Amino acid sequence: MSRPIITLTTDYNVQDHLVGAMKGVILNINPEAEIVDITHGVVPFDLLDGALAIGQAYRYFPPRTIHVVVVDPGVGTQRRPILVTGDQHYFVAPDNGVLSLVYDRETSLTVRHIIAEHYFLHPISNTFHGRDVFAPAAAWLSKVGQTSSFGDEISDFVRFTLPKPKPAENMIKGVVLRVDTFGNLMTNLTPEDVPKVVEPGSVFKIRVGSVEITRLKQTFAEGTPAEPVAIIGSSGFLEISINRGNAARTIGAARGAEVIVELG
Amino acid sequence: MSRPIITLTTDYNVQDHLVGAMKGVILNINPEAEIVDITHGVVPFDLLDGALAIGQAYRYFPPRTIHVVVVDPGVGTQRRPILVTGDQHYFVAPDNGVLSLVYDRETSLTVRHIIAEHYFLHPISNTFHGRDVFAPAAAWLSKVGQTSSFGDEISDFVRFTLPKPKPAENMIKGVVLRVDTFGNLMTNLTPEDVPKVVEPGSVFKIRVGSVEITRLKQTFAEGTPAEPVAIIGSSGFLEISINRGNAARTIGAARGAEVIVELG
Amino acid sequence: MSRPIITLTTDYNVQDHLVGAMKGVILNINPEAEIVDITHGVVPFDLLDGALAIGQAYRYFPPRTIHVVVVDPGVGTQRRPILVTGDQHYFVAPDNGVLSLVYDRETSLTVRHIIAEHYFLHPISNTFHGRDVFAPAAAWLSKVGQTSSFGDEISDFVRFTLPKPKPAENMIKGVVLRVDTFGNLMTNLTPEDVPKVVEPGSVFKIRVGSVEITRLKQTFAEGTPAEPVAIIGSSGFLEISINRGNAARTIGAARGAEVIVELG
Repeated sequence: MSRPIITLTTDYNVQDHLVGAMKGVILNINPEAEIVDITHGVVPFDLLDGALAIGQAYRYFPPRTIHVVVVDPGVGTQRRPILVTGDQHYFVAPDNGVLSLVYDRETSLTVRHIIAEHYFLHPISNTFHGRDVFAPAAAWLSKVGQTSSFGDEISDFVRFTLPKPKPAENMIKGVVLRVDTFGNLMTNLTPEDVPKVVEPGSVFKIRVGSVEITRLKQTFAEGTPAEPVAIIGSSGFLEISINRGNAARTIGAARGAEVIVELG
Repeated sequence: MSRPIITLTTDYNVQDHLVGAMKGVILNINPEAEIVDITHGVVPFDLLDGALAIGQAYRYFPPRTIHVVVVDPGVGTQRRPILVTGDQHYFVAPDNGVLSLVYDRETSLTVRHIIAEHYFLHPISNTFHGRDVFAPAAAWLSKVGQTSSFGDEISDFVRFTLPKPKPAENMIKGVVLRVDTFGNLMTNLTPEDVPKVVEPGSVFKIRVGSVEITRLKQTFAEGTPAEPVAIIGSSGFLEISINRGNAARTIGAARGAEVIVELG
Repeated sequence: MSRPIITLTTDYNVQDHLVGAMKGVILNINPEAEIVDITHGVVPFDLLDGALAIGQAYRYFPPRTIHVVVVDPGVGTQRRPILVTGDQHYFVAPDNGVLSLVYDRETSLTVRHIIAEHYFLHPISNTFHGRDVFAPAAAWLSKVGQTSSFGDEISDFVRFTLPKPKPAENMIKGVVLRVDTFGNLMTNLTPEDVPKVVEPGSVFKIRVGSVEITRLKQTFAEGTPAEPVAIIGSSGFLEISINRGNAARTIGAARGAEVIVELG
């Protein structure tokens, strides 16, 4: 019997005691829990960034892993704490859409409003539900092992959709969803959106900021230094990157920047 | 039987191998230890910031947890390494006051000067006692399980007090103790210091930098965007914050800034 | 029987889901693995910085620890993934020299080219071998326990040498290898290179940038505030530091800066 795994994804950063306090709460309830950080570097209050972080990581974990996701600008308000059962994983989060990519990818979904307050840490603060609500709920789930005692199922949970690519004649407009730690620009365009780009020998132009890119590379290292190239990244999206460089800084593009792909 | 938990709180940051080396030392002595980071983002050399970090986190951990706290500007000098037994937790740290908030909060306290050098890693460097002194002492404690073999009890350990609020006629002066990762300004004022502020319907003014705040909010989300508000934070202190914003940056206030509360 | 330990050293930083995904992959293969971060703050793409990070940390871990080191500017190209067996530890890394300091320090060395693709995560991306190649190989090694099934031994692995000190008449020229989190400048000079500096009562001058240092200190705290001093650091190299200050910032020196030691 393996130890139960609880992952943490937050915008708390690690400069503070916040993440440490959450871990203490979990271990105090279930000393057998194995706690794994996915990241605490989500852009503060940014639900899309949080959704992308958990969405790109959760499926690599073993079945029955419990994922705690706390990006929570509405902490202390009426927004609900939820417990989600997907195909193979559990998720504990505020009901604000931060699990939207999980909803997109799981075929089986049960979403419960957590109302069983005896699973929370009392007194419950108004400002730190990571410690008082989400961490203890996850820790109790790892002990109790069944979800029904946490609260009733709901169907009106909050869900947003990723910005969709906009096709036009001989072109498609996308957007930079996020900038990774190396400065690569991850767009919302998949190979399905831009089949002509991934086809060998095809002719296209990608414009981001003042830069024009005309070739797709298979690896970062193929680009000549300082040359921005397109690549299909490890999460399946078109990315703009620079071999051993920082594309975001060089191009001067950030999240939300328009990406125009012209074909032919 | 659960695995022994050892937490780490340092100003080492995580850009380096330093924290990794400490963890290796611990696991080499006690492979059963469960190591948990509280934070490595304490402001370098800053004993008050370190005291606040451990002070706000330790009580959430299970009984018998061993907390290693290394903020150590005097590393290599005559300042003593100490082992503290509180009500339910152990602490291993330099004797420089970094445990002052622990001393304030624990009712039972035994402080020992660690002199049993066979618990250290030899040769002992002059500059990295996190690796050579504190980590191995904590690891051995997690194996040995009793504190008396580490050294004799002392009573002249170093202890400082938090800056105290200064009351005057119809006002009280406080100070910003720290700025958290979201830019919230945590003051040294508790609800007991400013009962009129937390009383519903009361009239007050809080001045920080050039900003004047007149209402207390229950949650971050209640404030209108860009409006600085007062709130009782999750550690029990009055905080100045901005809904989805960064109060420190917006107000231009940092640690040490004066906070004046005027009543009536 | 202790849990197998797998350490991670990368330039992925922790702002992203990357490290979390690697941990998920490891736990999915071997839920018993104990994962320990050495650092994810290696300077991006910087093999020397990566070599120094693992080189300064690995020996503190227990025998049989598996160290995963991913600084990998050639990800997706023909550079080989390797599995190294040293005296007491294992290493999984790209064959690009990032293990050079390990090669220098281990007396027994077996280097294998990992070709057993069934140990990888499929489909293998071109851009994230930390997740698809190195993490799964390490996790399988922690289960399988023997290295021969991973691939054949090679002898032409990539290896670089640290920049060597250059002696001249009455002087020696060194270089700053790295700047640590406190701003200390770690040079490539050991006490063996500069015996006259570590000798009590000797007369010398160390020049870095516009600064001249004439005394060696035993501890950081001995220096008067703002005074740059020389010290033998915890990794055995001469360092330039400032008591409670940041030498790199104050002196304006960075990695690669020349360090001239004049004797007599």
